[in-house]
Amino acid sequence: MAARAIGVDLGGTNARAALVDAETGAIVSLSREVLADRSPAAVVEAVARVVAGVAGPGGARAFRTLGVGVAGQVLGASGLVLNAPNLGWRDVPLSGMLEGRLGVAVGVVNDLAAAAWGESRFGAARGTGDALVVFVGTGVGSGLVLGGRLHGGARGVAGELGHVKVRPPRPGEAPRRCGCGAVGCLEAYAGGANVAARVRSELAAGARSSIREGRGGDLSRVTAVQVEEAAAAGDAYARRLWDEVGELLGGAIAAAATLLNPQRIVLGGGMLLGSPTLLEIVEWRIRTETSRSAAVALEVVKAELGDGAGVIGAALLGGLDRPA
Amino acid sequence: MAARAIGVDLGGTNARAALVDAETGAIVSLSREVLADRSPAAVVEAVARVVAGVAGPGGARAFRTLGVGVAGQVLGASGLVLNAPNLGWRDVPLSGMLEGRLGVAVGVVNDLAAAAWGESRFGAARGTGDALVVFVGTGVGSGLVLGGRLHGGARGVAGELGHVKVRPPRPGEAPRRCGCGAVGCLEAYAGGANVAARVRSELAAGARSSIREGRGGDLSRVTAVQVEEAAAAGDAYARRLWDEVGELLGGAIAAAATLLNPQRIVLGGGMLLGSPTLLEIVEWRIRTETSRSAAVALEVVKAELGDGAGVIGAALLGGLDRPA
Repeated sequence: MAARAIGVDLGGTNARAALVDAETGAIVSLSREVLADRSPAAVVEAVARVVAGVAGPGGARAFRTLGVGVAGQVLGASGLVLNAPNLGWRDVPLSGMLEGRLGVAVGVVNDLAAAAWGESRFGAARGTGDALVVFVGTGVGSGLVLGGRLHGGARGVAGELGHVKVRPPRPGEAPRRCGCGAVGCLEAYAGGANVAARVRSELAAGARSSIREGRGGDLSRVTAVQVEEAAAAGDAYARRLWDEVGELLGGAIAAAATLLNPQRIVLGGGMLLGSPTLLEIVEWRIRTETSRSAAVALEVVKAELGDGAGVIGAALLGGLDRPA
Repeated sequence: MAARAIGVDLGGTNARAALVDAETGAIVSLSREVLADRSPAAVVEAVARVVAGVAGPGGARAFRTLGVGVAGQVLGASGLVLNAPNLGWRDVPLSGMLEGRLGVAVGVVNDLAAAAWGESRFGAARGTGDALVVFVGTGVGSGLVLGGRLHGGARGVAGELGHVKVRPPRPGEAPRRCGCGAVGCLEAYAGGANVAARVRSELAAGARSSIREGRGGDLSRVTAVQVEEAAAAGDAYARRLWDEVGELLGGAIAAAATLLNPQRIVLGGGMLLGSPTLLEIVEWRIRTETSRSAAVALEVVKAELGDGAGVIGAALLGGLDRPA
């Protein structure tokens, strides 16, 4: 029987668990629950339920380890969640709490680090030891696969591409404030939630765009999807916005590629993969702004595992591939 | 007897060899020669002479390996120098040529990677496995010590901080062209040679500054040293220039720290260590622009080994610590 492992993806709204075939990366079964109560104790119970949903008759104890990817900052191998804005958590000892509840060793990592590792082992970054895996969805983040290992850094928070500071692209414009509290973070300009909020605000203030017309004046449901539709149809406002977002995203990724000289860059996340017009701008910026020597033979590809990357990577990082 | 190794530092104007105590990093003896002829064949002979100057009676063959740091891009472990602008080289198989001449295995690495490794083993980055070592002198470069190893990347050209693209800090200003041929590289704004050329050009065009007065109108000898003197004395032109250079340097280093989460940043190189006013701005930018989670417990220190870092690192990388 093939080795199997359980991975959990813990976002701001859902907990998902998957039973993963560790030899092939295939998801054997999947269980999911909406988080009604986000308190640490309630979330631990929700995780226990989704794990039970995939663990089989022996329960979680039939597995020696469990891996959890959480949408937040995780302090190295300690399993301490320093900060998870979408859950409203600070300094939650998640691995200890889950170990006490489930009776197995639990490895906790950042959700995007887990997803990057999933892509590295079984997705678009397989076959190389040096890859930069970037996700642009609600937020912006990345995972660094360097020398065949997931690079965690001194405190385990490496890969925070979304919190690299960028300069405002429009002269005289003040830097935007990020959800993390700092100003000028890439995520404040290029994360899906912030892009949508900005578009709603600018349209409400009178900016001219076909986005407004397409929704009959109802701005509350505008997201990056409508910006992409408008940009693809030639709307000037949407095109200018995508130029700006693409310049900042592509520039930050190119800077990372110049510094790290990866063999491959993997681009993923719902906003980026759902916006071909934006993706093209980002790819062009990466090609033109990466240093010449690092751009030679650099592969730029799309993520392959979608939502599955997180649970697959978490399953592997929880045991077999657990970082030092 | 302690293990000893020979390291060579090959710049655009000099070849230096050192006999290094591999246990302590101490330089036992040093030999140096000005490069009158920069052709590959002539440089190989110059390296052979400086190596003979420190090798002792047994010659280079008494050592099993030799390490060379060269001011240029080196293709991974191949020893092929892709591009060395100061030597006027492209695609020179340096390690093969030196091995043929000296009869020992020769490891060739980028000079700043060698210097970073010297600081990592015996200088300001000792005792940590995760350090970003930045040098700002004539040019701008860095070495990445990640997980205890020197990170080379897919082609061995990782660490090219000087060729990260930056946005012009003055609205409406066109990006500057770099010696590498690209536009907008950090080095074009912050490398000592480019800073000096810019100051000479702006003063010749009539910019008001005490730099001009201090040199009696002779602009040909203006370097970063005079800019620092003027900035320290309160000269507005020099202060504004240091603000701009410091913003770009500090921002690029902070972005790298946000991405890599190093334990320590080491700042070195003649221009940066010789300019306390600039160094203060750079340190402040690093402190304020690095993401909060990566800035916690981040140490920012000065390089300790000066000119010796390159030969010490090259000696170690040539044999004992030779990268994969």
